[in-house]
Parts: sequence; structure tokens; C-alpha cells
Amino acid sequence: MSSPVRIGLIGTGRIGRVHAGNIAADPSVELSWIADPFVEGARSVSARFGGKVTESPEELTHSGEVDAIVIASPTPTHVDLISSAVDAGVPAFCEKPIDLDIARVDALREKVASSGVPVALGFNRRFDPDFAAVRARVEAGEIGRLEQLCFTSRDPAPPPADYVRVSGGIFRDMTIHDFDMARFFLPDLVEVSAVGTQMFDDGARRHGDFDMAVTTIRSASGALVTIVNSRHSAFGHDQRIEAFGEHGMIQVANAPTSLVSASTAASVEARPPYQEFFLERYAKAYAAELAEFVKLVRGEPSSSPTFDDGRAALLLADAAQRSAEEGTVVPVQLDAG
Amino acid sequence: MSSPVRIGLIGTGRIGRVHAGNIAADPSVELSWIADPFVEGARSVSARFGGKVTESPEELTHSGEVDAIVIASPTPTHVDLISSAVDAGVPAFCEKPIDLDIARVDALREKVASSGVPVALGFNRRFDPDFAAVRARVEAGEIGRLEQLCFTSRDPAPPPADYVRVSGGIFRDMTIHDFDMARFFLPDLVEVSAVGTQMFDDGARRHGDFDMAVTTIRSASGALVTIVNSRHSAFGHDQRIEAFGEHGMIQVANAPTSLVSASTAASVEARPPYQEFFLERYAKAYAAELAEFVKLVRGEPSSSPTFDDGRAALLLADAAQRSAEEGTVVPVQLDAG
Amino acid sequence: MSSPVRIGLIGTGRIGRVHAGNIAADPSVELSWIADPFVEGARSVSARFGGKVTESPEELTHSGEVDAIVIASPTPTHVDLISSAVDAGVPAFCEKPIDLDIARVDALREKVASSGVPVALGFNRRFDPDFAAVRARVEAGEIGRLEQLCFTSRDPAPPPADYVRVSGGIFRDMTIHDFDMARFFLPDLVEVSAVGTQMFDDGARRHGDFDMAVTTIRSASGALVTIVNSRHSAFGHDQRIEAFGEHGMIQVANAPTSLVSASTAASVEARPPYQEFFLERYAKAYAAELAEFVKLVRGEPSSSPTFDDGRAALLLADAAQRSAEEGTVVPVQLDAG
Amino acid sequence: MSSPVRIGLIGTGRIGRVHAGNIAADPSVELSWIADPFVEGARSVSARFGGKVTESPEELTHSGEVDAIVIASPTPTHVDLISSAVDAGVPAFCEKPIDLDIARVDALREKVASSGVPVALGFNRRFDPDFAAVRARVEAGEIGRLEQLCFTSRDPAPPPADYVRVSGGIFRDMTIHDFDMARFFLPDLVEVSAVGTQMFDDGARRHGDFDMAVTTIRSASGALVTIVNSRHSAFGHDQRIEAFGEHGMIQVANAPTSLVSASTAASVEARPPYQEFFLERYAKAYAAELAEFVKLVRGEPSSSPTFDDGRAALLLADAAQRSAEEGTVVPVQLDAG
Repeated sequence: MSSPVRIGLIGTGRIGRVHAGNIAADPSVELSWIADPFVEGARSVSARFGGKVTESPEELTHSGEVDAIVIASPTPTHVDLISSAVDAGVPAFCEKPIDLDIARVDALREKVASSGVPVALGFNRRFDPDFAAVRARVEAGEIGRLEQLCFTSRDPAPPPADYVRVSGGIFRDMTIHDFDMARFFLPDLVEVSAVGTQMFDDGARRHGDFDMAVTTIRSASGALVTIVNSRHSAFGHDQRIEAFGEHGMIQVANAPTSLVSASTAASVEARPPYQEFFLERYAKAYAAELAEFVKLVRGEPSSSPTFDDGRAALLLADAAQRSAEEGTVVPVQLDAG
Repeated sequence: MSSPVRIGLIGTGRIGRVHAGNIAADPSVELSWIADPFVEGARSVSARFGGKVTESPEELTHSGEVDAIVIASPTPTHVDLISSAVDAGVPAFCEKPIDLDIARVDALREKVASSGVPVALGFNRRFDPDFAAVRARVEAGEIGRLEQLCFTSRDPAPPPADYVRVSGGIFRDMTIHDFDMARFFLPDLVEVSAVGTQMFDDGARRHGDFDMAVTTIRSASGALVTIVNSRHSAFGHDQRIEAFGEHGMIQVANAPTSLVSASTAASVEARPPYQEFFLERYAKAYAAELAEFVKLVRGEPSSSPTFDDGRAALLLADAAQRSAEEGTVVPVQLDAG
Repeated sequence: MSSPVRIGLIGTGRIGRVHAGNIAADPSVELSWIADPFVEGARSVSARFGGKVTESPEELTHSGEVDAIVIASPTPTHVDLISSAVDAGVPAFCEKPIDLDIARVDALREKVASSGVPVALGFNRRFDPDFAAVRARVEAGEIGRLEQLCFTSRDPAPPPADYVRVSGGIFRDMTIHDFDMARFFLPDLVEVSAVGTQMFDDGARRHGDFDMAVTTIRSASGALVTIVNSRHSAFGHDQRIEAFGEHGMIQVANAPTSLVSASTAASVEARPPYQEFFLERYAKAYAAELAEFVKLVRGEPSSSPTFDDGRAALLLADAAQRSAEEGTVVPVQLDAG
Repeated sequence: MSSPVRIGLIGTGRIGRVHAGNIAADPSVELSWIADPFVEGARSVSARFGGKVTESPEELTHSGEVDAIVIASPTPTHVDLISSAVDAGVPAFCEKPIDLDIARVDALREKVASSGVPVALGFNRRFDPDFAAVRARVEAGEIGRLEQLCFTSRDPAPPPADYVRVSGGIFRDMTIHDFDMARFFLPDLVEVSAVGTQMFDDGARRHGDFDMAVTTIRSASGALVTIVNSRHSAFGHDQRIEAFGEHGMIQVANAPTSLVSASTAASVEARPPYQEFFLERYAKAYAAELAEFVKLVRGEPSSSPTFDDGRAALLLADAAQRSAEEGTVVPVQLDAG
């Protein structure tokens, strides 16, 4: 067995800690460095899972002691950290989105492509076992040609208003996962049409964001993607997929928290609410995306989402934002520069 | 098209009215006579659906104007009415049970058999489209050899205490449907084991009956039947079947009253309670059993339950009653006299 | 009890026969006249259900022997037949759509409004017991403010190409039901955005129609309606509604054809396909809409969809068609002339 | 925080390894010694999770370096190992059953009781989160008085014939879990009635065992327990509970392996088969029962099943075996010696 891949973790917030836990649990990798300008965060992760601590991501990346980095710091830092990893020749896994500004993404794109340094994007939903199973079954032809793809993505509760302010808006922050999933099933998306409104979240109202949205995307083949989003859901995480084709439909239901149901004079077959928290809903997906990134680092065949996947999702988000603002269908060109 | 089969209906209580409605709705039959000693009942059925009225079942059977009779009068009248129909050479459809006393049934048996006059029993559940579909799929070999058969039969509410008193007990009154269904799937039943208790129904308590029971029946092949009964069910009619075999399981779920479900912070996918009323739950079955009886009358191939089916169900009920009272397994011999 | 309402039926095609059957089954109405230029159709309906026969709708409407008419003839005849009914002072029930041309509808509108003659539209889905139950529960506040409304409407198979040619296109022919349902829940719709494509139906391809479409409608309150349509569905009629609000979600599932499910080594809980045929799926709705129309004719409080409901649905369909063709969001004004 | 509880593991077969993994994963305990006469097994567990190795359980128990032991060795060793733990004053967790011979269990009973040394039994199903939730909701009165309790327990495939030979038979080996669960809900069980047959498993046939069984148990209150067992199930582990009472029913469904369902022209809503393997099905339960035992060791309030729970389950199994062999109802007295 080869020696463990030494991983440097940048950022020790909520998602950084998920990655730390998954790194610790995987014997093929090792958490060797942890960087966070808020050095207390790094220290507390180190106390639990081991690893050297620094407040400087640069020091970590250029330490010569990491075989790969995981970037889980705030979005505005992503472009510089990827760029630095490419300079150091260190493979990087970066949380979505690359950046909220497509110009900054495009400026980095050529450098990444020509460097040959692997850069993977954190589109964890591709690695959810059920979503992945649906896609595999669609690819295997079980329902014939794919004609319609419907995503329902409703979060349990809106993020804090301060987060909404810097989030880039619902399309770049939340729908971006659905955009990536849409491309995962249908790479040839050509036209985006989106409607957003604001009904319940004060943070969205104050910062000019939508708190719900419906997006329709047309693929070159004629297949249609529908994405229904809401920033709240009284009954827990609402995360469903419906792939409809020539010969039938494959669906992913919501994740139950229990196998228990109750039947009384009031109602029958009532079950407890769904999972509240995305880290719990997608726990397996986070572990699986890390394992896939490790394959990429080792030079093995890997299906990690790429820098260009990250860019394409952002282009779709930008198009949706413009469509919702201007009331027009917005064409997208996802392949060329 | 042949002329309609003229049917004489004896008994105009709840179940008699169901048969009247089905006869009226079926263009291949005609409600020609209606008999009820409580002649007002017969008159009100006639006012709605037509037919001559009499208070004398004998007059009806021997009128020469009926091609067949439907016996929906109280259980103690069944044996004499069947006997009379046989004398008149008129095919008879009789509600279950034939009688509560196996000796009286046996006394009639030879007469029916040697007469050649068709006698059908009202085991309507065989004609429920879903139950029938399960049996057909089992017969077709979909789950291989049948190994276990589980019935859950819970009525919404106990019958009136006065009815309980003359009902013959839960096994002869209620489980008898499940006994017939058990034989419908597995004809070679050889041994009955039953436990009954009384927990909630005052009528059962007063008249020494059980208000719930569990019956296990062994077939010669080794297949096992389980019947779970209760005289009440807070959430509506609970009528389920589970056929389990070598290659899998086929189940019949409860009949929903609606396609609607609700998901809130309290519970998800909650649906309205099931149907309350057996006449509604088995409406299609009542119509189908009548149509099958008409085939029998016309001399066409018919799967109407026979007199011997009625006798076999009673033998099983008697065995269950004895098993529950004595705490022993009771062998049954369903084929011979 | 008042004397039966005498109904004249115009048109004896598939849907006309459904109405004939429902009229015959309802003791409060009577099928008194039947008109069809293809007089054989009228004769065959009369043979089964009674009623005078004519090939002239005009003769029927002005016979003085009908208290109301049901218009089930081809769409191009609707405007003239309604107009004629108004002239005769005879209440009319007309199948949707009023016409494919909003100008003709508008031209008739004032006449209908000023006449005081009741005109009802055949939006049967409002009368589906499950759809009606969801709306009643939403109105009762069970899920708080309604925020999102999602319709999935997929027909089992495309109509014949000849029908597609004269249908007015998928939005005016098929989605029109969903448009009416959207307004049934959310009357204040203000903006339509639609995307249509053609992937599988040759008839749609030849006649420049779409065979699938996704429509998003914004209400003044910010609530969002999503309608997903397809002209085919391998597993039977796919007709679902999801009402999502502040406090939860109420859904209508597809109508099962059976309560049976099977579990084997291949899959578990598999059920037979859904109903294939809309007349079967909506049988109760057709009967209920007729009963509601009879109330209207009798001058009783009635919730029959009105002429203006028919016009509003057509305005939405027109807007969707334009949106899909031009790639822009199309505002609608449903209240004013 | 207190220092970790040092645990000695005896037996390193399949279930021993599950406990080893759970001990290793729980920071409040530590795997300090591992004993197995097949010392290679102990060494391989130690290599993975740490701990001293011995081939002598005695050495482990009396090492003075264990605060508690987990007995996961073959059933015939259980009584001596518990006895030795009691001698050493070391709390013991023992896999079910205590022994196949009630006389040996009774002989040990007084010693355990008077010693005050905690002895816990491995009835893991009590700790399954869904089963535990049902019981908690029943205890909380959600369905009123409990009237009927139905267990369906079907294993994916029969054990090897060699195992069947020494297993003590289906009731003592397999149903024993259901017996314990029955008492978990209804402590006052008084009478057992069981039927067993042999239809498919050659091992059962050769060694005179049943491969399926139905058991009915009556409680003093009149509540009825039904247990349906089979040694095979084509669609995976079939493990369901239904608690039925005055005000309704609470059910535990089978554990899905996926949230995916498929709808085609062949069937709708078909899902992948259930879990095959009991260690996977009950993974959470194994971890939770260990945590509960640790509380017991620490002297904290604990709901670990006791030695007497183990004895009561064996008494029920003995009664079921006798009932199935003799065809009589068998009374049980679970409280006294």
C-alpha cells in the first residue's frame, strides 16, 4: 500500500471541519497541515485530528509537506489560493464556487489548464449515492433518452442576512449545486430562463436577493431542466430529483430520518420530518468526493468535478441572475473560452 | 343477447340493498321479486329498483318467475332457504355463513350435491380486484412456491352487542372471510391454532366472545397462514394481505380514501384515514361476485365459491373456536364428509 | 323535489358520451335532446340513454324543450353555440377552450356578461376530489401563505397528428388545464415565462408544435407556479400537484390502478402502472362538474368555472405561446377587458 | 472527563469484530485485551484496533487490566465466562443467548443476582433507533393501550447446516430476538403458542429444525403478540414491527438501501431490495448497546438488558419449541425462579 496522501486543509469553518473529519477517517490520507488566519480554529481542529497549525495558507501550500490542499476558506479567497497551489504544483480541491465574478474565474482558467496541476471542485451532490445511482441508471439507458430533469431544492431555513449580503445571490449560492447537477446529467445546456421572487426572508429583502426561484434550462437536444428552489422548508431538507425519459422515470425521494410511521384517526402513514441539516443529508457525499479527489491526486482515473465544471456552473448562475432581472431567456456557451 | 336472468332477492337489510343495487346496475340481470317478512323493506327496495314484493320467501322461490335467488336474510334462515331453492330447482346465491351449526350444514350437504342445483356462497373478498390479482400472480408462479400468507383484518368498530350475541363468535362471524381467503390461496389446510382475547368491546365481554384473535393455520405442504383480527381500528378498515414465497412477496395495502398527503414540521407524507365502511371498501367485489353467480346460473364456467367452500370455512371457524377455548392445535379435514 | 333539469347535449364524441353517461346517472337531470351533425353519433347515444335526436344544434337550443345545454362539439363551434344559447336564454356548459382566438372570445364576452345567461366552462380538474381537497386545505390555511405551486401533467401518449394540427398548440390544448388550476389556487397571476421543445412526437414536429414544455408563472404576491408538461409518459397518466407554503406542503400523488405491490430480488414495493386514460382518471371530476352546473342552472350557489375563467386560461396560454416563441417573459392582465 | 473504560473482548468472530470496531470508535472506552483460543483471530483484531492478545479468556478476565468484558464467543462458553467474570468482579456484556439449556442458566442465576456484578445481555434490537422510537411512543401513550404487536422477522438466507445443528433451533436462535422485543413492549407475557414447519432449508430438514414459524403470545392484559419468522427472504432482510392499540398503529418499515425509485411501463415506484446483512441493518443498534453497557459499568443509570431478560427470552423460546412440538399452548412464568 502506498503511503498516505498528506493533505493541507485551509479554512476550519463548518465545511472545513467536515473535510477534517473525513480526512481523519480515511486511512489512505493524512491531515498534515491546517491553516486558518483565525488560528484558534486551526488549533481546535488539530487538537482533535492532528496536523501542524499555521495562520498562513501560503506557508501551508509551500511547506513542501503537503501532497494536496483542500480549500474550505471564504469564497473571495478561492482564486488566489488555487493560483498559489498551481504555482506550488500542489493539487487542490476547492469548495464551490470558484468565485462570484466570472472575470476572475476566466483570468485564472488558462493558468490552471496549462499547468497540468489537478484542480477539483466541491460539487458534493454528484457523490450522493442516490443521485449518483440515478445518473448511472440514466446513462445505462434504463429510461431511454432523457427528456426532462426536475430538481426540487429547498433548504430548511434561510442563511443569516450577513451571509446573504455577500453570497452573490440565490443562483450563485444555492442553485449553483443544481446547475452543476443539471450539467452532470445533460452537458449540452444552451439557454437559461429564471424567475425569482422574495416572499419570506428578511435578509433577502434587505439585500435585494430572491428567497425563491424557478429556473428552466434548455439543452441542445431539446431536453428541459426545471429547478425549483426555496430558502425555507417547514418539514426539513427538500432535495428531490426526477429524471424523466422515453421509457419512464427515476426519482430520488427525500431522506427519511426514521422508518417509523403512525396511523390514527387523524391521518395515516405519517412519518417524522426529513433531515434538517445539509451536512447530515450529504455526509456520505462529502466522504466520497474526498476519496475521489485522492484518486485524482494519485494520478488514478477520477471523476472529480473540474475547474471548468466550476466555471460552467457559475456561467449558468450568471445567466439565471440576468434572466430573472431582465425577463429574457439568456443563452449560455459552456464549452468555449 | 340472451334475455336477462330474473333474480329474486330475499332479505332487504344492508347487504340485501347492496345486491339490489348491483342487480339493477347490471343489464344482464333483472330484479323480478323481492321477499322480506318485514315487507316495508321489500317495498322500499322495489320502489327504487322495481320487482314484485312479497313477505314470503317461499312464494318468491316457487313463483316460477325467478331464474335464481339471492339470499341476504339472517343466518338462521339460510339452510331452509337453500333447501327450498334446491327443491324448486332454482340456483341460489347465499350470504356467508351457511349456518353457525356444522351439523345443519352437513345435513343439507348431500341434498345440494346430489341435486345438481348450483349453490354459490357470498365470499365477496375473492372478488376484490386487488386480492384476486394477488392470487392470480401467486398462481402464475411470480413468487415461486407460496410459503407464508398473512392476513390483517381489522374492522373499524365492533358490531352492536345484540349482533355479537347471535353472531356465533368472532371466528364464525368475522374471521370466516379470512378462512375462505386462506383456502382460496392454499386449499390443503390441515391444522388450526387460535388465540382470542377480549380487551375493549363491551358486547364481546358480555356475550363471552373475543374482540381480537390471532389464528395460525398449517397446510399439508408446510405453508403457514397467519390471521390477525381486531374488532376495532381507529384509522379505518385495516385489510391487508401478504403472500410470501420462495422468490418474494406480494402485498395488498389498505385502500386510501385520497391521493393527498401533507408534510409539515409535525410529520411528513401524512394521508387521510382509510375507508370506514366495508360496503364501500368492497363495492367492486360485491358487483363482481354477482356477475360470477350469473355466469353460474347461465351454465357458463364460473368461479363462484361453492356450498363446500362455505362448509370448509365453517369447519375452520369451528376449529379455531375450539383451539382458542381449549388451548390445543385442532386438526381439520376439509375434503371428506 | 323539483322536476329534472332537461339537458340538450351538443356533440357525441368521446367527451360528449361521458357527459351523456353522467346525465343519465343523475336523477336530477334528464337527457332530453341530442344534436350532432354526424347524426349517427346522436342516434347511438340516444339508443343508450334516451333523448330526441337532431343534426342541428340550433334546433336543439331553440327547441324550448331544454333547460340547459352541454356543448361538447369541436372547439371552432363553441363561440357560435354559446352565442346562440345566450340568444335563446338557455344556460350553457361549454368544454374548454372557448376558442383558440382571444379576439373571438373577447367579442363574445360583453354579450355573455350583459345577458345574465349562465355560461360555465368545462375545467373538470377543479372537481377532481383530490385536487379540490388540496385547494380547500390551502384555503383553510393549513400550510400558511401559498408560496409555490408545482404541476406535473404528462399525458400517456400524444394525440393524433391531425388533432395536433388544429389543437392550437400544447399550451392552448393541454397546459390550459394547468393554467386554470393555477388561477384556481392563485388568482393574481401577472407574468408568464415558458419554454417548449420537440423531442419525440412526429405530429408536433410536422405541425410546428412542442411536445413538452415548462411554464413558470409569477403572481403579484410573489408566489411562483411551475408547470411541467409532456405529451407522453411510459408509466401512465402523470398528474401531480404540489402546493408549498410557509408551514409545509400538500401533494397529490398519481392515481394507482391497484393496491398491490411486489418485492423480489429485483426490486421492492413495485406497483402496477398508473391509469392510462384521462376519462378514467377524471371520471369523478366529470360527474361533479355536471352536478355543479346543474346548481348554476337552478339558480343555486355554484362554483362552476365561468366564461371569464375560460378567457383567463386562454390569455395565459397565449402568453406562454408567445413567451416560448420569443424568449421573453410576457405580462398578463387577467381581470380587465 | 473520566478515564476510558478498559474493555476485554472475548471472541473475535463476526460479531466480536463488530464490537471491536465500536469500542475503537468510542473515545470513552478502550480495547485493552483480546482473547480467542484461535489466537490468530485475536491478533488480527489487535493489529487493527490495538489491545493485548491472549488465547485464554480466563487470563483476560483476571488480568486486573480490564474494567469490563464483552463476551462474543460461541454460546456453550457463555455460562462459564459470565461465572468467571462474576468471580473476578468484572462487569460482563454477553451475546445472546446465555445458554441453550435453561437448567444451566438457572444454576447461574442466583450467583449473578447475589454478586451485584453487572451482567448485560446483547439484545441489540432494543437499541435500533426506530424500534426504540416506537416503544417510546407507545409508552408515551400515543396509541393508547397496546392491544396487538406484530413482528415480521425474515432473514435473507438460512445459516450453514453446521450452525443449524448446534443452534438450539429456530426459536432459541432466531426468534429469541423477537421474544425479547415482545417483552420489551409487553412484560406480562403468560402463554405461548407456536407452529413451525420446514419447507426450503436443507440444513433445517437434516437437523430436525423448522425453517419458518409463527408464534402467538398472550399477555396477562389480553394483548396479543404475533411473530412471523422465515429463514429466507428473496428481497433482503425483512424486519418490521407493528404496534396496534386503542387509538391507532405505529409501524417500522423495512430499511431501504436507497432513496431511488423507478416507474416504467412494467411497474411504478419500484425500489432496490432491502439490506442483506444484519450487521449492516443493525449497525447503529450495536453501537448504542455498547454505549449503554458502558453506562452500566460506570454505575450510571442504564437500560441494558439484564441476565433475567436473557433468561426470560430463553423461557419463551423453550415454550415455543414445546408448543410447536406438542401442539398445545404452553404457559410461561417469567418472573419467579
